[in-house]
Amino acid sequence: MEILGTIAFAVSGAFSAMEKKLDLFGVLIIGFVTAIGGGTIRDVLIGNTPVTWMRDMTTPLIILGSGLLTILFKGYLEKLKITFFLFDTLGLGLFTIIGIQKGLSIGLNPGICVALGTITGCFGGVLRDMLLNHIPVLFRSREIYATACIIGGTIYCFGLMVLPQQAAQVLAIGLICGIRILAVRLNWQLPAVKGK
Amino acid sequence: MEILGTIAFAVSGAFSAMEKKLDLFGVLIIGFVTAIGGGTIRDVLIGNTPVTWMRDMTTPLIILGSGLLTILFKGYLEKLKITFFLFDTLGLGLFTIIGIQKGLSIGLNPGICVALGTITGCFGGVLRDMLLNHIPVLFRSREIYATACIIGGTIYCFGLMVLPQQAAQVLAIGLICGIRILAVRLNWQLPAVKGK
Amino acid sequence: MEILGTIAFAVSGAFSAMEKKLDLFGVLIIGFVTAIGGGTIRDVLIGNTPVTWMRDMTTPLIILGSGLLTILFKGYLEKLKITFFLFDTLGLGLFTIIGIQKGLSIGLNPGICVALGTITGCFGGVLRDMLLNHIPVLFRSREIYATACIIGGTIYCFGLMVLPQQAAQVLAIGLICGIRILAVRLNWQLPAVKGK
Repeated sequence: MEILGTIAFAVSGAFSAMEKKLDLFGVLIIGFVTAIGGGTIRDVLIGNTPVTWMRDMTTPLIILGSGLLTILFKGYLEKLKITFFLFDTLGLGLFTIIGIQKGLSIGLNPGICVALGTITGCFGGVLRDMLLNHIPVLFRSREIYATACIIGGTIYCFGLMVLPQQAAQVLAIGLICGIRILAVRLNWQLPAVKGK
Repeated sequence: MEILGTIAFAVSGAFSAMEKKLDLFGVLIIGFVTAIGGGTIRDVLIGNTPVTWMRDMTTPLIILGSGLLTILFKGYLEKLKITFFLFDTLGLGLFTIIGIQKGLSIGLNPGICVALGTITGCFGGVLRDMLLNHIPVLFRSREIYATACIIGGTIYCFGLMVLPQQAAQVLAIGLICGIRILAVRLNWQLPAVKGK
Repeated sequence: MEILGTIAFAVSGAFSAMEKKLDLFGVLIIGFVTAIGGGTIRDVLIGNTPVTWMRDMTTPLIILGSGLLTILFKGYLEKLKITFFLFDTLGLGLFTIIGIQKGLSIGLNPGICVALGTITGCFGGVLRDMLLNHIPVLFRSREIYATACIIGGTIYCFGLMVLPQQAAQVLAIGLICGIRILAVRLNWQLPAVKGK
């Protein structure tokens, strides 16, 4: 499941980079950063080094493979946008919960863990946008994205008090994905905050 | 005092984000990053992990509260620009000295500690500008900002040789704030460096 | 040799910053970030903290001196573009191999070490471009830059199996520099990847 999330994020990064007409190397690197960015920031913040993706070749090879396949089959993949939206959403849910579990395992406050999970889920995309010289879509789009992580993560932490871990996990991941999918289908938006 | 600085930086971040018309979540996150960015980069560089703000909920709650109040009372706060300039300046001085003290406590060279203090004071704002897709104002504006930290921090390190710590601290913070305030009042600028 | 690389990178960063008309402080900082950025990211990722440049004043003083000299003699230096291209290339080769050696010394997989070396060589420039609000030239330009690091680094890891370390080192650095120089002379480019 974690692997599915990694693939989805690598593909989404590679797509964004191709739209900006980067070269081959740039597309692969942006895919890489999108896939490992959130987890890397998490590991650096909690001092879990060398960071996770450096410990063996599995993750890097999966990401490079996904990036190359994206480049080769980009015409075909564009017809599968819904499939990728679902992958991306699943990755978001999984990475959020993984981040929270890492935080809890080193004894951080649950509120901090929710922040850590949200960082794990969302900041790969933030790094991608920074490298591509956008204001991160996360902050600008008024989409329900991080909000889904925060709600699902909070429920997970409360759920752990009354449920076995696996049940809380499935519930929270389902909730994050459900909120995200409903938000996109029903076009929910966060309130705008106007400057003067 | 540290709390005042945190609040001032959170508010200044939230203001900048509102000017770019980010959504609610974006405004809060930019406020958060502005307030904890400098200290987080410092902690990561010296390996002080989990980074400081993750250790309990005090700092995150203060920042979120400040961000929300900024959004609610933005009309009112705009009339208090001078108050916030003073808060921000106080935060700058305090964070710089805190950063230097952390560096000295792990035995780094005083020159490095001044750099570390300056990073602590200034890089929250640099991250804010990078996320908002500006060239960081710090580098572009020719304002005396980091320069005040460097001068005050250097005086602090020399001061420690002849003064008790508290006296050196008060002197240096006063100096940083004083230079910054005078620079703005008298419109001091760094020399421009022209390209060809 | 490492010092030459540091100088070259500091100068290249200061040049880029002067083209954007930053102030004195901005030019020095961008030079600094370009010179230590790659090594700092490497140290943070593998948990080697405090990061290398913080351990004594040698590196910071060299960088600040290089930055100041660049500002003072910029008219003269512009005539030496080829000299600097060669310095920069040498720095690229050296930093890549240093990064790989650090990775191998803590027992990482050689494939990961090549990535780590490439990060050490290239990411100072990426940070420079992000601070100056560009899409990093590294990703966009279709130049053979990181590619040279990856090829040279891979050869280095294989070379270690059959050659003494020093020979492998000289071979790999020569290869990285050779590929880079030939690529520029002969105008080699990576294939473009077109978006739809």
